[in-house]
Amino acid sequence: MEKIVWKNSNFYIQQHDNKLPWLKLFTAVKYKELSELPEDVKQQMYQLIETIERVMIEYYAPDKINIASFGNMLPHMHWHIIARFKNDPYFPKTTWEEATREFSLELPSFETFIEVLSKRLNSLPKS
Amino acid sequence: MEKIVWKNSNFYIQQHDNKLPWLKLFTAVKYKELSELPEDVKQQMYQLIETIERVMIEYYAPDKINIASFGNMLPHMHWHIIARFKNDPYFPKTTWEEATREFSLELPSFETFIEVLSKRLNSLPKS
Repeated sequence: MEKIVWKNSNFYIQQHDNKLPWLKLFTAVKYKELSELPEDVKQQMYQLIETIERVMIEYYAPDKINIASFGNMLPHMHWHIIARFKNDPYFPKTTWEEATREFSLELPSFETFIEVLSKRLNSLPKS
Repeated sequence: MEKIVWKNSNFYIQQHDNKLPWLKLFTAVKYKELSELPEDVKQQMYQLIETIERVMIEYYAPDKINIASFGNMLPHMHWHIIARFKNDPYFPKTTWEEATREFSLELPSFETFIEVLSKRLNSLPKS
């Protein structure tokens, strides 16, 4: 079971099992597709994705942010938000493809990242 | 060069070179990351993504929609929006992974899909 690192009444965030900074944002209620979300939940979701991206950029200074929603195996709408680095195991390919090098990044503490991120998410204006 | 199938002043849509219904939505102005987009452009982008998803679902009745923004090779913010089917070459894996079966889907006309989609995109309220 992957650890839940943040939640509110509409969403929760899990840490994906990978050495990269990789979060998964789930809706608390199961929806299959993006367009099924109620408007207020959808707007809140966009705000959360953007905030996660901003804090990842500020904290990790990655080369790129990757954002993806598949759900082919698990039909429960969720987003992967991943900080990517030019020398990470998969770059420039997606993290769903084969790794072409060892993980050798020295990244700042993930726990501190979650503390910084949680503060920012908790201080967002209610949408 | 992949064909542009729709555009307005802020965005254009390309058909990805694949037999699946697979579109790529680009901003006309180059931004590297989602959080760099001006608020009005970002809201319009979400509206376009949702409309593409809805029309794909109505037209193709796919098993799942996949949505992704990578841009690792090309640092120009763009979204892949893909209709996925249980018997497509990659399912349930992502379309960035190896195909595990031949393409054998009989899908309705892509050209007609683009006509239907263009009408819907052109009739969206200005945000």
